Amino acid sequence: VAQNVYDDPEFFAAYARLDRSVHGLDGAPEWPTLRAMLPAPAGLRVVDLGCGYGWACRWAAEEGAASVLGLDLSEQMLARARTDTPQGMRITYRRADLDHVELDAGAFDVAYSSLALHYLTDLPRLLGVVHAALVPGASFVFSVEHPLRTAPSHPAFVDGPDGTPVWPLDRYLVERPVTVDWLAPGVVKQHRTIATYVTGLLDAGFALERLVEFRPSDEQLAARPDWAEELDRPSFLLVAARRA
Amino acid sequence: VAQNVYDDPEFFAAYARLDRSVHGLDGAPEWPTLRAMLPAPAGLRVVDLGCGYGWACRWAAEEGAASVLGLDLSEQMLARARTDTPQGMRITYRRADLDHVELDAGAFDVAYSSLALHYLTDLPRLLGVVHAALVPGASFVFSVEHPLRTAPSHPAFVDGPDGTPVWPLDRYLVERPVTVDWLAPGVVKQHRTIATYVTGLLDAGFALERLVEFRPSDEQLAARPDWAEELDRPSFLLVAARRA
Repeated sequence: VAQNVYDDPEFFAAYARLDRSVHGLDGAPEWPTLRAMLPAPAGLRVVDLGCGYGWACRWAAEEGAASVLGLDLSEQMLARARTDTPQGMRITYRRADLDHVELDAGAFDVAYSSLALHYLTDLPRLLGVVHAALVPGASFVFSVEHPLRTAPSHPAFVDGPDGTPVWPLDRYLVERPVTVDWLAPGVVKQHRTIATYVTGLLDAGFALERLVEFRPSDEQLAARPDWAEELDRPSFLLVAARRA
Repeated sequence: VAQNVYDDPEFFAAYARLDRSVHGLDGAPEWPTLRAMLPAPAGLRVVDLGCGYGWACRWAAEEGAASVLGLDLSEQMLARARTDTPQGMRITYRRADLDHVELDAGAFDVAYSSLALHYLTDLPRLLGVVHAALVPGASFVFSVEHPLRTAPSHPAFVDGPDGTPVWPLDRYLVERPVTVDWLAPGVVKQHRTIATYVTGLLDAGFALERLVEFRPSDEQLAARPDWAEELDRPSFLLVAARRA
């Protein structure tokens, strides 16, 4: 079972202050790229795996999705998602541990997940559940923390050989749980390689449609010069797949 | 046009002393994995893009390939390939710059390339040429130097924060020609991300079948403890695709 750090009060309070918590999708630099990888939701049945505050659920509903199911492990996230969702929107929020979730076969036309799958201890199981829950030809679009972020023993920039910052990469091929201090001490993620995400999809019966190692746009870099470190070590891996 | 460093006498002399030059496929740790990604060559028409000494061409011919075309930019490599190939083997060696090569449409059932594509300046052009040269359903299997090797400004292990070696990663998302001293000074390669290789294939009309970030086997690591650094930073990216 994945750690439920989002219901840790210290973590939750810090998370609530992130740009993407305050500003929603507009505060997530990778969102425009991810959105362009998604099919237009109008008329489609959408499931959001790890929906958090429900920003993407509300986007899909506003775009005319036939129905939206938002799943999250955190009661606190779901409580805020429900509070923030206007009456009448076709969204159902439900508590679910993605390591154990069950979904009805063929119940969805789109599966979406933002920055959740790197918490799962059993990725192949979830990929199988998602594959079975989608109709043939349906899209599965997700982001995870880029494996270059989770690989190092000491994941923080240091001065490199010529004095400019470098990312001290080691253990990239050593898949394992990693404990990082991010918003709160002791947050546990699963380090996996890019190849593991990709072959996991292929093994589950998906066709790969798009793989993006996210680079902020020139506009974003002009507005946020501190994001230049993303060019050295990307933070987001974005994937679009199609159920065969 | 790609640099023809293999015809530089200093480089060629050093290359000839590499394990993989002396021992052929048995000296290439990634070969068993790559071979398992290839279809059985019996009865198939095979093209090898950057064939070097012709080891893989002779393997395919010995396995019963209907024909093998070995292409390389280096006259010296081709001369040794011809010398090492027994009379009567169904192999043709031809000089070709992969940045400008032309291949007949539908002329091949398998395309293979080992550690050559990272030299190309125009990868999308080659992927289009290979796609057109393959029959529908044919395999394209290749290796390239792993992008984590070509990314850094200073591609050599340094002592990390806790005194153990780290790979000083920077500029991973900055695609560019990089000049490294490998066997000879000033060898020029093209740094590209994993996503660029993968989406290049998808855009050319291939379906991705397998992506491997090569990890030496436990047996190989026991025999060659110095290869443990591969776990920190892999050297080989292996890809299998199918022409749609």
